Amino acid sequence: MTKRIETSSGEDALIARYFKPLATDPGAFGLVDDAAILRANGEDIVVTTDAVVEGVHFLARDPPDAVARKALRVNLSDLAAKGATPAGFVLTLALHRAEDAFLTAFARGLGEDARLFGCPLLGGDTVATPGPLTVSITAFGRVPEGRMVHRSGAKPGDRVMVTGTIGDATLGLDILKGGAVAAVLANDSASRDYLIERYRVPRPRSALALALRDHASAAMDVSDGLAGDLAKFCAASGVSAVIDAPRVPTSDAAARLLAHGATSIADLVAGGDDYEILCTVTEAHCERLTDLARSAGVALTSIGKIVAEPGVPRFIDAQGREVALPRLSYSHF
Amino acid sequence: MTKRIETSSGEDALIARYFKPLATDPGAFGLVDDAAILRANGEDIVVTTDAVVEGVHFLARDPPDAVARKALRVNLSDLAAKGATPAGFVLTLALHRAEDAFLTAFARGLGEDARLFGCPLLGGDTVATPGPLTVSITAFGRVPEGRMVHRSGAKPGDRVMVTGTIGDATLGLDILKGGAVAAVLANDSASRDYLIERYRVPRPRSALALALRDHASAAMDVSDGLAGDLAKFCAASGVSAVIDAPRVPTSDAAARLLAHGATSIADLVAGGDDYEILCTVTEAHCERLTDLARSAGVALTSIGKIVAEPGVPRFIDAQGREVALPRLSYSHF
Repeated sequence: MTKRIETSSGEDALIARYFKPLATDPGAFGLVDDAAILRANGEDIVVTTDAVVEGVHFLARDPPDAVARKALRVNLSDLAAKGATPAGFVLTLALHRAEDAFLTAFARGLGEDARLFGCPLLGGDTVATPGPLTVSITAFGRVPEGRMVHRSGAKPGDRVMVTGTIGDATLGLDILKGGAVAAVLANDSASRDYLIERYRVPRPRSALALALRDHASAAMDVSDGLAGDLAKFCAASGVSAVIDAPRVPTSDAAARLLAHGATSIADLVAGGDDYEILCTVTEAHCERLTDLARSAGVALTSIGKIVAEPGVPRFIDAQGREVALPRLSYSHF
Repeated sequence: MTKRIETSSGEDALIARYFKPLATDPGAFGLVDDAAILRANGEDIVVTTDAVVEGVHFLARDPPDAVARKALRVNLSDLAAKGATPAGFVLTLALHRAEDAFLTAFARGLGEDARLFGCPLLGGDTVATPGPLTVSITAFGRVPEGRMVHRSGAKPGDRVMVTGTIGDATLGLDILKGGAVAAVLANDSASRDYLIERYRVPRPRSALALALRDHASAAMDVSDGLAGDLAKFCAASGVSAVIDAPRVPTSDAAARLLAHGATSIADLVAGGDDYEILCTVTEAHCERLTDLARSAGVALTSIGKIVAEPGVPRFIDAQGREVALPRLSYSHF
């Protein structure tokens, strides 16, 4: 955006019309300069970047405002997991062509979320692509110096906790693809809509960021599947974990599908796009973090313990048996 | 990168193998966390973002190391124009598939430039795309608080100056596409190679950044064509410019093509991918900036004056006639 202002081209008009209203931060210079200024205000700047690609991270028929929200929210989810408060973002939009209906809805969704999460557009770039719509966002947050919550830091004995519910998004994607789940929920449009929305529009747990900063020993967001992300999380700390599988939080819709045998806990913990926060907490901090999460309106569930023995984390079922996980997570390559 | 570390996937191996060696800044946490830390050190963080798309900004047969260099350098060019010293960058790489030969060369080019320009990799994301290779980079620089050089700020009477030479890259692209220029230079491989290299690997004028900060009234980088970018530049300051077209600096190769009638000044000033710096300077600062540019080894040429009258900047030829410009610049939309 900042880069591609044209005085007389379609690109110029595009930016001025759709995106300038989102550039509310003084450091964005109204998108009429070549770069933005991000003030650190004596804090550390936390930087994260995530892209979403049509056909890979969202579907071609997903509403444009949902695509915009997802692109921003997957980044806000990272900031929240790191204990950072949002400071702004830059956007690179690779478009096939500039269509008013798409851009109007896209900018509306993006603008609403930018306001909702206090994360203004600082700048960006709009490029033409012969390929699929691709939205790359780099988002910035602030933490007091040295206070970013790391992925490493989990210690044996720490509780493993997770926000929200797990597996909804992968079920929503299955419905959108006309999979088996859709048939089971044929007469339950509320559950279908809920699961689809969970796939399309993640819910970054920004309200928990400050509490994580003060009380979590380590944290990351769950984007590629709880099982796989937990394995990475443990590897970063040189530990492992034992998870009480029945305690993995599921939504009513997912619980119904589990009861019908239309999905399994193995599917849910290996499915992508949860954008929940996985964290570890010492026993001493557990009650306080749980209280703060409740006050913030974020469900936070204790699902297991960190153990010293190396190896892939184990999920244990109600009968004390290890849940077989044919795959741990989603991978692009 | 930071986001997609996998303990056991191809993606994990990809990042660890190719990109971790580039993450030399302590704030990158070796690409094993979900976000990076950028320290402002009491300065302003300058943020710029630019993407390059295969078939749009580079050609499929361009060498992978050149693609990486171009992706980083177009951002470094923005930082230089803003008077900022590089601080680091994040990378989003949208790939068709992970091929060792491509990634090895890409990472080598990126790493060499990261070292050369003192701009380490801080993090990123690697995503699969069914579309063309797309490299999005967000780069960060630092300036003392409030000292970013803006696009606006030019005043009537200021000199208009430009670094390097103009039009080489568009000629290089014409050669790569087998255009008319290639035939004229059939027996001059040195000129062909020079022009192609100018298209593939821009030369960010980072050595001029500090001098611009102290002596330019306004600056931007020229990426979409001198004529169009000058028009935007003037519009940002509410002024216009009169350019002495014969003074627009050209390389020996371009001069040869001009002499043969194989190109025109109108083509050169409307061609994209120069990545030179356009700036304005008051008469009082002109000599000092020129001296500093000479010391920095950056050619800096005075090409005209800022005037108060509104309107599109005019290019005047040796006979005092206005050069007709059928188009001002390259636009994607």
